Amino acid sequence: MEHKEISKSVLKRLPGYLSYLKSLPDGTATYISATALANALGMGEVQVRKDLAMVSDGGRPKIGYFRERLMEDISQFLGYDNTTDAILVGAGKLGQALMGYGGFDEYGLNILAGFDAKPTTDRTEEGKPIYPMDRMESFCAANQVLMGIITVPAEFAQSVCDQMIKSGIKAIWNFAPVHLDVPQGILVQNQNMATSLAVLSVHLQAQMKDKK
Amino acid sequence: MEHKEISKSVLKRLPGYLSYLKSLPDGTATYISATALANALGMGEVQVRKDLAMVSDGGRPKIGYFRERLMEDISQFLGYDNTTDAILVGAGKLGQALMGYGGFDEYGLNILAGFDAKPTTDRTEEGKPIYPMDRMESFCAANQVLMGIITVPAEFAQSVCDQMIKSGIKAIWNFAPVHLDVPQGILVQNQNMATSLAVLSVHLQAQMKDKK
Repeated sequence: MEHKEISKSVLKRLPGYLSYLKSLPDGTATYISATALANALGMGEVQVRKDLAMVSDGGRPKIGYFRERLMEDISQFLGYDNTTDAILVGAGKLGQALMGYGGFDEYGLNILAGFDAKPTTDRTEEGKPIYPMDRMESFCAANQVLMGIITVPAEFAQSVCDQMIKSGIKAIWNFAPVHLDVPQGILVQNQNMATSLAVLSVHLQAQMKDKK
Repeated sequence: MEHKEISKSVLKRLPGYLSYLKSLPDGTATYISATALANALGMGEVQVRKDLAMVSDGGRPKIGYFRERLMEDISQFLGYDNTTDAILVGAGKLGQALMGYGGFDEYGLNILAGFDAKPTTDRTEEGKPIYPMDRMESFCAANQVLMGIITVPAEFAQSVCDQMIKSGIKAIWNFAPVHLDVPQGILVQNQNMATSLAVLSVHLQAQMKDKK
């Protein structure tokens, strides 16, 4: 089906539906209704119905969605079935953990290689290569890499980001705790662990204070 | 100093300042100005000045902040110097990667143990214990754990969340791609990797289409 402009909030709910559908055991009914999905996930029925209609035209009145087909439609919409090749810059602890994390496969993410200003090793435990930074540009060109993951300390992130864009990267997953300036057409998705921890930790401190 | 109500956006910028300050080599000047910090991080001077004033009263006109003191003030504000004990539920690949990630130390996070409905091992590679789920409540009580990390598949996340709250947990770091319902006073911070990947991947697909 033709994909319309879809809002970020719909996009954020889609992985949840897919994850639930995938989790259903063999032998579950072949069809599933938006109502059943809404109930299972504790969400509003109208919202689920609208969300699904955005990505799949397979829903049939009183019957629901053919489950397999719905999973395919969501996966396809989210680009999970096209593998996206990515590179990662900053092969420290976090970077290597991400490079070694097998769970990204199912989201269609394939981290080809890591780069580091001062590599401490030339391979992760799982055997993924780690190269010095000056090889990044030619590697991205040779492998037509469009996604970059940034796991360097905050103060190096902008310069890494600039180098990535120069190397042809269009989408950046940023784990550094800093805002990145990018030109139009480049998307930055921030995944700031330090920020999340700070928010949680400040909440806990406030709670402790209230108790006193 | 007395901490006022601080906005989430300020909170989100603080880890960036701290990370930059920590990165400065030995022998850097003892004092640093808001202007220098703003320039180094490519941020507005006024914003940096306001942010720092929220967490430290150590700034002196024309001299700036005593660097060591400013780092302490930010760390203290963010709760990084008080270690927060946490438990993690869902000791699969992502869960074990987080349990093994050494970098959380510097943010004051200490993951004491992991729990899993069906543990595949009783320890991570780094030696952190993994227990069956039914031990979570007593473990949290015995160790006065206030923070929980959720790395289970989406469809189990709400039930794990409910159990955590029953066990006295007040702050939840949610890696499952699903919204969690919680009572007042409980904070959920979502760290949705699947969602981030979906957003990036859909952006790349749209870019490819534009090229055609």
